[in-house]
Amino acid sequence: MTSSEAFNRFHAVIPAGGVGTRLWPLSREDAPKFLHDLTGSGTTLIRSTYDRLTPLAEGRTMVVTGENHRDAVIEQLPELQQSALVLEPEPKDSAAAIGLAAAILHRRDPESIMGSFAADQVIAPVDVFQEAVREAVVTAATGRIVTIGIKPTHASTAFGYIRVGDAHQIPGAPSARHVVEFVEKPSDEVAKQYSGSGDYLWNAGMFVGPVALMLKHLAATEPELHAGLTEIAAAWDTEAQDEVLQRIWPTLPKTAIDYAVAEPAADVGDVSVIPGDFTWDDVGDFAAIARLNPAAQQENMIVLGKQPRVYSEDASGVVVSDTQRVVALIGVENIVVVDTDDALLVTTTDHAQNVKKAVAALKKKGDSDVL
Amino acid sequence: MTSSEAFNRFHAVIPAGGVGTRLWPLSREDAPKFLHDLTGSGTTLIRSTYDRLTPLAEGRTMVVTGENHRDAVIEQLPELQQSALVLEPEPKDSAAAIGLAAAILHRRDPESIMGSFAADQVIAPVDVFQEAVREAVVTAATGRIVTIGIKPTHASTAFGYIRVGDAHQIPGAPSARHVVEFVEKPSDEVAKQYSGSGDYLWNAGMFVGPVALMLKHLAATEPELHAGLTEIAAAWDTEAQDEVLQRIWPTLPKTAIDYAVAEPAADVGDVSVIPGDFTWDDVGDFAAIARLNPAAQQENMIVLGKQPRVYSEDASGVVVSDTQRVVALIGVENIVVVDTDDALLVTTTDHAQNVKKAVAALKKKGDSDVL
Repeated sequence: MTSSEAFNRFHAVIPAGGVGTRLWPLSREDAPKFLHDLTGSGTTLIRSTYDRLTPLAEGRTMVVTGENHRDAVIEQLPELQQSALVLEPEPKDSAAAIGLAAAILHRRDPESIMGSFAADQVIAPVDVFQEAVREAVVTAATGRIVTIGIKPTHASTAFGYIRVGDAHQIPGAPSARHVVEFVEKPSDEVAKQYSGSGDYLWNAGMFVGPVALMLKHLAATEPELHAGLTEIAAAWDTEAQDEVLQRIWPTLPKTAIDYAVAEPAADVGDVSVIPGDFTWDDVGDFAAIARLNPAAQQENMIVLGKQPRVYSEDASGVVVSDTQRVVALIGVENIVVVDTDDALLVTTTDHAQNVKKAVAALKKKGDSDVL
Repeated sequence: MTSSEAFNRFHAVIPAGGVGTRLWPLSREDAPKFLHDLTGSGTTLIRSTYDRLTPLAEGRTMVVTGENHRDAVIEQLPELQQSALVLEPEPKDSAAAIGLAAAILHRRDPESIMGSFAADQVIAPVDVFQEAVREAVVTAATGRIVTIGIKPTHASTAFGYIRVGDAHQIPGAPSARHVVEFVEKPSDEVAKQYSGSGDYLWNAGMFVGPVALMLKHLAATEPELHAGLTEIAAAWDTEAQDEVLQRIWPTLPKTAIDYAVAEPAADVGDVSVIPGDFTWDDVGDFAAIARLNPAAQQENMIVLGKQPRVYSEDASGVVVSDTQRVVALIGVENIVVVDTDDALLVTTTDHAQNVKKAVAALKKKGDSDVL
């Protein structure tokens, strides 16, 4: 099979879910991370993701998101065909979201190859990413599930890792390697070992594979989920679509695509990896926002917002101004201030990961109106 | 003269001016410090000041404030007679404000004794303060200007000091002492020396004296100011009052009562002091607010506001919440957060004094709408 034949079978899928709790109060249940411009690029993360995939899958990019985000997603992606928008009645984690896309694509064409790329990631340079996806598609066409792993730039404990094995010999995919195993987020010490060894890549959650192969692994690992998705897909593109979706979806089990497909597939040697030599960030917290926005620097402060009115003195860190208010910062180092109409966060870049805990506590306290 | 005769001549004067710039953005040009409840007492500082003086000068308490604060002051002090409210067309510093009160009281009764007590001070216990004022009035009736000095509790560099001399022998004023001199805010080292010596008291800016004697010193030191105030006072309580005030007031020089009256009077031996054995705070900055509000403590945070919705974790300091917004504080120590509708301040208790500088910078930047 030629590379161009493989590409005719390729569909990009963008799962757009996840609130991004560590980015509260900017990111909310009704305005999640992917609907924001977090890099000062002028476009939202989902729009950037879509644009990055267009040269690879023009007119063949599907978005899977929550029913409640329908209007916001269409506003961001007005060219999206109705048949390319899959709306989840409620969040069911990544195995259901990606599995449903796989099942729908499989019903439409059992030979489809899909690539799943989350809506809230920041990648540069784009052409290096695209070349990695091209190799992944070519590798997938040989009957494999292919992930794109990121070369570690530091000993991160925030990501899972991929242990890389021998090289493949696939024409058109010179970088392709076998995956030995996926490993969970490591301790500090283990992360140092992994990132220095050259044998490990970060797991960025990007999966490219023949839908038939992905569904086969899903059926083996999560038969109930597979059965439900198959029933929904059978009704897709028919008049019964919505009725069946609304009836079956709430009954589906919640699990991650990693557990349901990638790891069991790796265990039987079905997974390959393309090492990605591009910078990649999942914008996990406000420290990431500071890191990703050097251009927004005013003296020592990173200042984001439509019309920020920030005064700072002896201060450093990041301010996200979502209001018209004047923000004055005096004598605070590595501060994080996120100013929105109904909620204010004050923390430091060192504590950025703890924001998730605060959101959980606010929910418990009954302050859900601002979540 | 008996103590009761002296009291029949006594009038309290409350100068209510000064924005309290170091308390921005809570304190504003149109809502200065004295109009806020900064101690969690449930009453504003001006109301507390008035109530503290009522047992000493019931129906004989005068307020001098800006025209623009007229309605707010009347709302706070509904019982205030029109003749007891003096409205400045524009701020002209303390010598003009207190001097005008002295000149008006002198026109009404040349034998009047006045006591001037700023509207934005916090004092406890009140009965100890009142006893000190009683001694001051008795001492003033012997023909002296009397200040109430505060026994230093630490080596403050934020206040001027009063050097105390020999004791008087005045019946009804056993604590009265001569004042040797007033001294400016000292350096750290000098402050330590002063506060440890027993010979120095803090200058709290409280002055009690016969209006005739105060005006005599004002005439000698600031003849232009004295002449202007005399002209205004001559028209007071007549139909010409407002016309003359509006015409003369803008021409008056700006200076402090300390320079215009207290210091020159001390130089010629006309000043006495009653040591005040009460706690006294001029609520100069947000560090003072933290200090004065132990009762508002939620775990390690001092939280002030009508309906604060504050979540804190690994955090300490003070939050003033003037909005309905949720405020989340994570991993910030000794933080000061002041959350108002149009401005937000984030600093630390150590930097509380620098807020004044920020306000000056905002003014320069053209952000006067929030000052």
